[in-house]
Amino acid sequence: MITDELIAKIIEKQNPTCVGLDTVLEYLPEEMQAEADDLTEAAFALQPFNEKIIDAVCDIVPAVKIQLACYEQYGESGLNVFNATAAYAKKKGLIVIADGKRNDIGSTAEKYANAFLGDTPCTGCREAAFPSDYLTVNGYLGTDGVKPFTDACKQYGKGIFVLVKTSNPSSGELQNLKLEDGRTVYECMGDMVERWGADTVGKYGYSAVGAVVGATHPEEAKVLRARLPHTFFLIPGYGAQGGNADMVRACFDGNGLGGIVNNSRGILTAYKKRGGTYYDAAREACLEMKADLLSVLGEICAK
Amino acid sequence: MITDELIAKIIEKQNPTCVGLDTVLEYLPEEMQAEADDLTEAAFALQPFNEKIIDAVCDIVPAVKIQLACYEQYGESGLNVFNATAAYAKKKGLIVIADGKRNDIGSTAEKYANAFLGDTPCTGCREAAFPSDYLTVNGYLGTDGVKPFTDACKQYGKGIFVLVKTSNPSSGELQNLKLEDGRTVYECMGDMVERWGADTVGKYGYSAVGAVVGATHPEEAKVLRARLPHTFFLIPGYGAQGGNADMVRACFDGNGLGGIVNNSRGILTAYKKRGGTYYDAAREACLEMKADLLSVLGEICAK
Repeated sequence: MITDELIAKIIEKQNPTCVGLDTVLEYLPEEMQAEADDLTEAAFALQPFNEKIIDAVCDIVPAVKIQLACYEQYGESGLNVFNATAAYAKKKGLIVIADGKRNDIGSTAEKYANAFLGDTPCTGCREAAFPSDYLTVNGYLGTDGVKPFTDACKQYGKGIFVLVKTSNPSSGELQNLKLEDGRTVYECMGDMVERWGADTVGKYGYSAVGAVVGATHPEEAKVLRARLPHTFFLIPGYGAQGGNADMVRACFDGNGLGGIVNNSRGILTAYKKRGGTYYDAAREACLEMKADLLSVLGEICAK
Repeated sequence: MITDELIAKIIEKQNPTCVGLDTVLEYLPEEMQAEADDLTEAAFALQPFNEKIIDAVCDIVPAVKIQLACYEQYGESGLNVFNATAAYAKKKGLIVIADGKRNDIGSTAEKYANAFLGDTPCTGCREAAFPSDYLTVNGYLGTDGVKPFTDACKQYGKGIFVLVKTSNPSSGELQNLKLEDGRTVYECMGDMVERWGADTVGKYGYSAVGAVVGATHPEEAKVLRARLPHTFFLIPGYGAQGGNADMVRACFDGNGLGGIVNNSRGILTAYKKRGGTYYDAAREACLEMKADLLSVLGEICAK
């Protein structure tokens, strides 16, 4: 069970940090950008950067989150680099979260599930087109749009994180509206997520169907942590978006488990503030973030 | 303005039908599937099929909707075929809708906007990685997640369709819930869409920011048509999903304008029921659908 595996790595490394590989050309040191004159060259410039970042952090973090939008904007070559990065991270023992926020009606969602969590759609193939351990999913379409993903989770031992309360400033426009039954929209989405995960709860008490809960909304996180006891949180918004350790504390249970905090820009571009190489700076930023998180979580342990 | 262009084509062809190129290997005649033993071969098998379909329908329909999930499941080669199909459709004078239901926080949504509606992210490039006229978008994240798309619409003359009331059976689980203020979630999303499009209303009265409204939910469509006077509808769910002409009538205004009805399986696999070649059968299915729609809409005209 993938969430058990993720949690075991978090406990082993005493670090609930996810490195966000939202890599774009302008994050790279200038000398690495120099030759990138078209989409393909731009895409391929990202790969050595990502590998050096992974080398620098793979012994201290459990997972990477690769932002599909960043690679998609470079076209087919970008997706080639997405795959190469994911494969490299896997080889280095990291859990790979594909951040694609995919969604559609059931018959189509099945194809996205094939692409990221699956098996492939043709004879003779063994692997998904973009093999990932987790995929982020948007649940606006309801149960039948999510079922192909949860089916793939069960069949292939994968996981998903469903958007519940997102980290962006406008997330409340829809998500915080009150329903007639007294719940907010994000609570309602959270309740669905808890239900979708009910039959994949693992040995640490968390299921393969997680929730995206922004570090920037601690009040909502507190409500959701209490309400969704079996739902593991992917927590974006730490660092550049304004979230800090005190703000994410509410996402965790009494053992310091229950979530993983993502940081993208704060790690990838740490060298711009700290100086030194981008990979040494990334490692330092990760260690600092680990210390920051542990200062509020204490030791992370299974019950 | 892209919605003016789309509407002009609908009026010219007297046909508000969109051909959904949700092409997957199993839709192809057996002899075209024969050689497809891996992802790349499977992907490339789709291209001649799509081209023949486009040839067969390009004089009678205004637009195609290409379902990204179908191509993404075949990996990079699938996305190559997505692009080749989109380019072929453009060459044949059709409007291209990329059905990706993309969404993310603002800084990331910008990359999806680059990929499909944009300009590209590096010097020396002129075109988006996956050039499309429209992209479908999921609005769960609220205004700042949609703004990069509406900005691209304005800057590059493109359009989007935001999911409002989707065609799938479970869509009501969230979308039909009543809010404390008396609106349903789908009405609230619809109101946001109408607002997001307010400054791109074209000469026919419809904006570049459209809504996805399922043919399978005529009651909700009626409510939305009255509520969102400047919002053009992309209407999935006709045919295989159970929608018919009577059910989509409510999506249109008094002039027979206001929406375009998508049909994917019913056109691509028409040959399995009708016999004959897949392209002749697709054309016949399109003509039949046109007649069906016009039987309830009457003549389509600008005021």
